[in-house]
Amino acid sequence: MTPVYLDNNATTRVFPEVVEAMVPYFTEQFGNASSIHAFGSDVGGALRQARRSLQALIGAEFDHEIIFTSGGTESNNTALRSALAANPERNEIVTSTVEHPAILSLCDWLEKHEGVTVHRIPVDKQGRLDIDAYRAALGPKTALVSLMWANNETGTIFPVDGLADLAHEAGALFHTDAVQAVGKVPIDLKSTAIDMLSLSSHKFHGPKGLGALYVRRGTRFRPLLRGGHQERGRRAGTENAPAIVGLGKAAEMTMATMTDDMARITALRDRLEKGLVQAVGHCFVTGDPYDRLPNTSTIAFEYIEGEAILLLLNKQGIAASSGSACTSGSLEPSHVLRAMEIPFTAAHGAIRFSLSRETTDADVDRVLDAVPAIIDQLREMSPFWSRDGAAPQTFDPAYA
Amino acid sequence: MTPVYLDNNATTRVFPEVVEAMVPYFTEQFGNASSIHAFGSDVGGALRQARRSLQALIGAEFDHEIIFTSGGTESNNTALRSALAANPERNEIVTSTVEHPAILSLCDWLEKHEGVTVHRIPVDKQGRLDIDAYRAALGPKTALVSLMWANNETGTIFPVDGLADLAHEAGALFHTDAVQAVGKVPIDLKSTAIDMLSLSSHKFHGPKGLGALYVRRGTRFRPLLRGGHQERGRRAGTENAPAIVGLGKAAEMTMATMTDDMARITALRDRLEKGLVQAVGHCFVTGDPYDRLPNTSTIAFEYIEGEAILLLLNKQGIAASSGSACTSGSLEPSHVLRAMEIPFTAAHGAIRFSLSRETTDADVDRVLDAVPAIIDQLREMSPFWSRDGAAPQTFDPAYA
Repeated sequence: MTPVYLDNNATTRVFPEVVEAMVPYFTEQFGNASSIHAFGSDVGGALRQARRSLQALIGAEFDHEIIFTSGGTESNNTALRSALAANPERNEIVTSTVEHPAILSLCDWLEKHEGVTVHRIPVDKQGRLDIDAYRAALGPKTALVSLMWANNETGTIFPVDGLADLAHEAGALFHTDAVQAVGKVPIDLKSTAIDMLSLSSHKFHGPKGLGALYVRRGTRFRPLLRGGHQERGRRAGTENAPAIVGLGKAAEMTMATMTDDMARITALRDRLEKGLVQAVGHCFVTGDPYDRLPNTSTIAFEYIEGEAILLLLNKQGIAASSGSACTSGSLEPSHVLRAMEIPFTAAHGAIRFSLSRETTDADVDRVLDAVPAIIDQLREMSPFWSRDGAAPQTFDPAYA
Repeated sequence: MTPVYLDNNATTRVFPEVVEAMVPYFTEQFGNASSIHAFGSDVGGALRQARRSLQALIGAEFDHEIIFTSGGTESNNTALRSALAANPERNEIVTSTVEHPAILSLCDWLEKHEGVTVHRIPVDKQGRLDIDAYRAALGPKTALVSLMWANNETGTIFPVDGLADLAHEAGALFHTDAVQAVGKVPIDLKSTAIDMLSLSSHKFHGPKGLGALYVRRGTRFRPLLRGGHQERGRRAGTENAPAIVGLGKAAEMTMATMTDDMARITALRDRLEKGLVQAVGHCFVTGDPYDRLPNTSTIAFEYIEGEAILLLLNKQGIAASSGSACTSGSLEPSHVLRAMEIPFTAAHGAIRFSLSRETTDADVDRVLDAVPAIIDQLREMSPFWSRDGAAPQTFDPAYA
């Protein structure tokens, strides 16, 4: 049975063309890009080309606005710490309740141990930011706003352009965690007021262990990793040439077909959602129905456990997720769904299907075939589900 | 003409077997190791095996003492910041004048901007640490000692076992930057008092963009990158599975033949050194003649410019270096050679030849053939070299 992979927000398959582009940089052009001999200097040209491919994908005005990092987490940590260090007269961060752990865990630490005040802006039941609360939180002490472009669990898109303008009115820097947005929605940074943007290569079919932080020219910046002069002194450490070349190739391939791919993926996703909601009662799609990533669908199946659904799907060769891979192993329901005030009985049974351009019609058919029976089977065993299916028991908060 | 690569301290060729081991983790077993479905959970076993291979190479008592990072620079930055954050009652660092920029640049920053006192212990003319000065610098305010296992430029080995014991007597943590030592000298951490050790995969034929920080069990630790729960909550970010698998394979291969390889490399290196010193006058080998990495030889050719030597070597397909790749582009002579009080007239003409287990007798022959003529040619043009070769002009400090 061909496996069905619908966990592309966790990570994607590296395109074979990307691997092919990378391999020579392991064993042939393996020199240190900072060396002056031919083994090293030949690598420099490849890195410049990769940087320009990524520049095109995110619409940066200058290629030197891109700093290669080891991934989204490093980019996010660098952005927050840089903004605080470079603006010592301000010690407040404004963020949201639904950010990735790479933002929220760091904010918790900064608040508890480093004297930073953190404002966590709430969202509504569809995951949309409370703009009034956001405006109210901005002030003369705000060093940085960090709001994600698109949510990793629900796919909800924040209106980052406008949010960045509001941050600037308060004299604050604006950072966006765009790890889930890059490669899925058009991005043209030069036409926005965004100062910093984090991205991760492995979310759009590039290699793991590589990301980038966009830093607009003129933005005050402090490196997180100090040492050698790499990345114009902004991120020390030997350049990860094979991975950078791979990211460049992935960016180029993504850019070439993104419009068509995303139209097709949206149609597949919509068919998946409609099919499941029609076939299975007591379930609903989470997130903003109007402004959502084309590839992401988190569906809450009430009165059952998401982990159980995943295990039964896995038996049938279908990979999905119950939230962020970065918080797996926890039995708590997703902080994102809790922030959206989705009841525990539903949040516990939420499954994220995340598609990619490799997803096929047959994949969607397989899910539509498999899920209804799995849900029925689990509800039969659920203490929260009435056997006639008509009147589920009332949610008992003691259960959580 | 087959290229000759003698810049292995900058980076090494990835072993083809390592690439072969990595490739399936890009396109087949590409899942997120933190996911619970088959795409992810299968990766977990491979990561455990890689961790155990590295554990064996460094003689760690427990495999969970290893934290995978993005490289030596991140490991070094993490170690220093962790020691300071975890021991707030102490605010001094003891290090040496010859450390890698990943230590020295960070120390400069900490001293200037974060109220840390840094003691930089000098070395003698052969690069050996001044032990009396080291003892004197240790005290009740020392949070951390950071001393490299082996110098990247001269190969000089510090007696880290004993240095760690002295640090512990003062109640300080001991960290060693072992980026150049791992894979070249036997390391058995469980028999030492070393608390933290940094290493980098691409220095022993593994992939770039991956390193590790060893943290002895029980050592107080604070993560540098916060976010997901990866690496037991000590280093957030999606595991770089292909690179970790590659590092594991490189560790395993290195371990299997290290004793024989290093005996052979030592013999090659000694033949190179003796041949050059005999054929070229006014030159000398730098570093500790008795305790030096088997693969490293930095030779100072007086009265000429190292960069010119490198360019002429490069024309003949020979890759070497004039010091650390991390400081290339600078016209200043190496901070390591300056710390050893090697005169500018010699330090400017220093060339590092760094061998690996891929180095052959023929490679050494090529260098022995090429270098003497290059040196003659350059000295002919040098304003500091008397044409009869007998009485070089006196060094003029204004030149530097």
